[in-house]
Amino acid sequence: MSDVTGFFYPRTATGQSSLLPSPPWYYAGDLLTVEFRTDPARVAELLPAPLRPAAEDPGAVALIWADWQSCGGDHAEMLDPVRAQYKEAFFVVRCEFEGHTYSRCIYIWVDKDFAMLRGIHQGYPKKFGSIHMTRPHPFAPAPQVAAGGRFGATLAANDRRLAETIVTLTGPAERNGFVNGHPMAHHRWLPAIDGRGDAHAELIESTGAKFEGGQPWAARVDHLALFGSPTEELQRLEVKEIIGGYYRQIGVVWNGGRSLVPRL
Amino acid sequence: MSDVTGFFYPRTATGQSSLLPSPPWYYAGDLLTVEFRTDPARVAELLPAPLRPAAEDPGAVALIWADWQSCGGDHAEMLDPVRAQYKEAFFVVRCEFEGHTYSRCIYIWVDKDFAMLRGIHQGYPKKFGSIHMTRPHPFAPAPQVAAGGRFGATLAANDRRLAETIVTLTGPAERNGFVNGHPMAHHRWLPAIDGRGDAHAELIESTGAKFEGGQPWAARVDHLALFGSPTEELQRLEVKEIIGGYYRQIGVVWNGGRSLVPRL
Amino acid sequence: MSDVTGFFYPRTATGQSSLLPSPPWYYAGDLLTVEFRTDPARVAELLPAPLRPAAEDPGAVALIWADWQSCGGDHAEMLDPVRAQYKEAFFVVRCEFEGHTYSRCIYIWVDKDFAMLRGIHQGYPKKFGSIHMTRPHPFAPAPQVAAGGRFGATLAANDRRLAETIVTLTGPAERNGFVNGHPMAHHRWLPAIDGRGDAHAELIESTGAKFEGGQPWAARVDHLALFGSPTEELQRLEVKEIIGGYYRQIGVVWNGGRSLVPRL
Amino acid sequence: MSDVTGFFYPRTATGQSSLLPSPPWYYAGDLLTVEFRTDPARVAELLPAPLRPAAEDPGAVALIWADWQSCGGDHAEMLDPVRAQYKEAFFVVRCEFEGHTYSRCIYIWVDKDFAMLRGIHQGYPKKFGSIHMTRPHPFAPAPQVAAGGRFGATLAANDRRLAETIVTLTGPAERNGFVNGHPMAHHRWLPAIDGRGDAHAELIESTGAKFEGGQPWAARVDHLALFGSPTEELQRLEVKEIIGGYYRQIGVVWNGGRSLVPRL
Repeated sequence: MSDVTGFFYPRTATGQSSLLPSPPWYYAGDLLTVEFRTDPARVAELLPAPLRPAAEDPGAVALIWADWQSCGGDHAEMLDPVRAQYKEAFFVVRCEFEGHTYSRCIYIWVDKDFAMLRGIHQGYPKKFGSIHMTRPHPFAPAPQVAAGGRFGATLAANDRRLAETIVTLTGPAERNGFVNGHPMAHHRWLPAIDGRGDAHAELIESTGAKFEGGQPWAARVDHLALFGSPTEELQRLEVKEIIGGYYRQIGVVWNGGRSLVPRL
Repeated sequence: MSDVTGFFYPRTATGQSSLLPSPPWYYAGDLLTVEFRTDPARVAELLPAPLRPAAEDPGAVALIWADWQSCGGDHAEMLDPVRAQYKEAFFVVRCEFEGHTYSRCIYIWVDKDFAMLRGIHQGYPKKFGSIHMTRPHPFAPAPQVAAGGRFGATLAANDRRLAETIVTLTGPAERNGFVNGHPMAHHRWLPAIDGRGDAHAELIESTGAKFEGGQPWAARVDHLALFGSPTEELQRLEVKEIIGGYYRQIGVVWNGGRSLVPRL
Repeated sequence: MSDVTGFFYPRTATGQSSLLPSPPWYYAGDLLTVEFRTDPARVAELLPAPLRPAAEDPGAVALIWADWQSCGGDHAEMLDPVRAQYKEAFFVVRCEFEGHTYSRCIYIWVDKDFAMLRGIHQGYPKKFGSIHMTRPHPFAPAPQVAAGGRFGATLAANDRRLAETIVTLTGPAERNGFVNGHPMAHHRWLPAIDGRGDAHAELIESTGAKFEGGQPWAARVDHLALFGSPTEELQRLEVKEIIGGYYRQIGVVWNGGRSLVPRL
Repeated sequence: MSDVTGFFYPRTATGQSSLLPSPPWYYAGDLLTVEFRTDPARVAELLPAPLRPAAEDPGAVALIWADWQSCGGDHAEMLDPVRAQYKEAFFVVRCEFEGHTYSRCIYIWVDKDFAMLRGIHQGYPKKFGSIHMTRPHPFAPAPQVAAGGRFGATLAANDRRLAETIVTLTGPAERNGFVNGHPMAHHRWLPAIDGRGDAHAELIESTGAKFEGGQPWAARVDHLALFGSPTEELQRLEVKEIIGGYYRQIGVVWNGGRSLVPRL
């Protein structure tokens, strides 16, 4: 019998093969956020017990595109960038638990395996998608992170476009939206191998361990569309009203969370 | 508060978004297998407690490429084939637990998200890779599943080639190798969100619920190479001796397994 | 000064780097064809001089999905299948030149570079796409090439689905449709480097040098959809009437063609 | 008979489908350059008549990674960024023609179809590859374009890694290397459809129509490796001596070139 090591799959004698290093994990990237209001009932139906809808603005949704470079403690991935770079698009709502307000990711698509496995750990319901965002750059025809900068972002999965937006930066903002501004409250589920319910069901809280951020920018939302797909329900989140758009460059460290309810 | 449904992530009010339907899962595909012997210590070091090395031929390893189409109970994925087709390459060894012999997948790469999430459920240590296999076809220049048919197979991840083989079918065989012929014994792990060990650690057994198979073919292994990578340990499984090559077309149903040790 | 060799780009001292070997090129694959009628004016507007619309059934269009393995004369690609396998989807119409009927590819998407460069040589207007086709296989849940076999096929480009079909094989057919049954008449264009017209404009004819084919199957077209995209005009080819569906496995050798009009 | 329009394939009645808009084409991106000396004979053998080796430093080679966003005159691609963003890696040498020094791309890999078709127009010998570069960003763990910034870059094709480098920025430089600093002299070839030589063979010159550039940075080359592949000859360009590394952010407009020898 042998000891195996590694943070998550695969675990080996040396740990070298593990798809994920142990946290902390380091991220730098750009966030393009569009916030809108949908029917609060559509948000509420996505909040399993013991979560409750947020008391204020319960139909608020954030759709966020992110273009990341991330790595473990030795930063090795940064110099082999196929292992560091990924993009994601995700929908966030707010909810309440024991008197606190949480953010919660209800849908998310990423484009790398390490990001998908991190999601299993963190309770993000990750699928694979194809995600694109206009990148800021000092020279035309690229936009800059400055008033007038125009950015497009798209999401596709299974060869179908699922969402797209175009925003124009208008001026500095106090914050980068409000829907994704709380600690995350996520369920971590592992279905039982015999198909009878879950072998593990836990409610966890997690938030960044360290955060740096550039100036948030407000943006006019010129275009926002959510498309149908046999494997998605985005059109159920009908856009009733645009709240606003945002753009921000950030650096984050993630170093675990804590159980709110260890066994649901 | 709301009930959400869906076999695994994401769970929603309708269940439509779930990346995986509930089992049973249906598979049809081709398996190209190369079996070889490595240092038994290299196999033993990958077997965490309570597993033990197999008593017979403890250094035997199977490297298997598979080209699959798979679906859930309504077979909808088969007609939207981007959701049905995937390929994988995986290494299997044997081990013992409570007097029974099991197969165990030690490394595996797939190329679709649904396959990766099924792996989390089944305890396969899945990563993403780029997998290619020559496909049999009735007309030249393609090989047929017949004596003289030559097939190549390759595996890459993170833009590095990890493994490749070339085999030539020689004649009918009694079976499709022996290393992957037992029920699988897999650990299902979920690291604790606070980084202190595992929130869930379970030893499970699973095997096909139903199986159809064509004639197994024996193959001469003309070429087999395992390459180095900073994120893999394949060269640790040094090929001491080729056991044999195999090719078989199969249909399988998977419908769950059972816990051997519910909490390790 | 040096001699360089190689069929097409790049040309080097040894020729080893050339993306394409010299013809003949060998192909084995499956064709799923849907033929339909559109407004003949929509076909005619895609036929540049000196081509004319076909006298009979001038609105007939074939939409063909193909799943190929291909190689040069030494067949090396077949054993390194990432270099052999590709898929394509293409639209074919008929036209006339000097009293002969020709087939002509008006739109085509492929998923490998060698296929794209072959298109430049052969006058196919190739773009990159993501193409999927259900594959026949001996075991369920896959269909067989037999009555009742159901096949789906999809095409996407730039993260948008462009076309999809579902067909059910009904019985043996005499031929695999008629629209793609003639020699191809293609324009080979190379725009002038100074932007003033074309440096090269040629009308060429090409056809297979050798052909093997399995039994053609007729199919009922259960579903056919062409979607909109800012970069495509497929919806301009409105489906007025389905002619039929077809499925056939073939082997082909391509070995060049001839100029019909060397300088247009 | 009909007029069709569009800069290059496909040409249609409206021109909407054309993979490329007419020039000018607009680019913004980052260049990571490593210059080295190889055996001058290895450069000379890649220079077809009427080009001659450069008189000075004839073994100098630049290996350049580029991370681009590009578009046509209406900039539409910038807001649908899957159509704007691409990466490339390419090798450049110098040569002489009629008393002038030119740069010449001898090998190049890109990751989008529009970039590949532009290459056919411009005489770049493009193949498809998987290209990655560390991206500068204001926050850790990403590097900045500043002294001490470390960047990795990799190239793979056909699931094999072909080249990789790691550089550390050391300080401002006067220029971004010298090998890629001249107008490009490229052959534009189109093989004859009957396989007898070329239907078109032309020597063209092209250079940027407009250029903006940030401060060039010099870099220490910490690592440079060129790997073997059955489809490439990079190891023939043995690295005898590192000249230097460079990093620069630029904006470029390309608007055609001119024939140096219209028919070779």
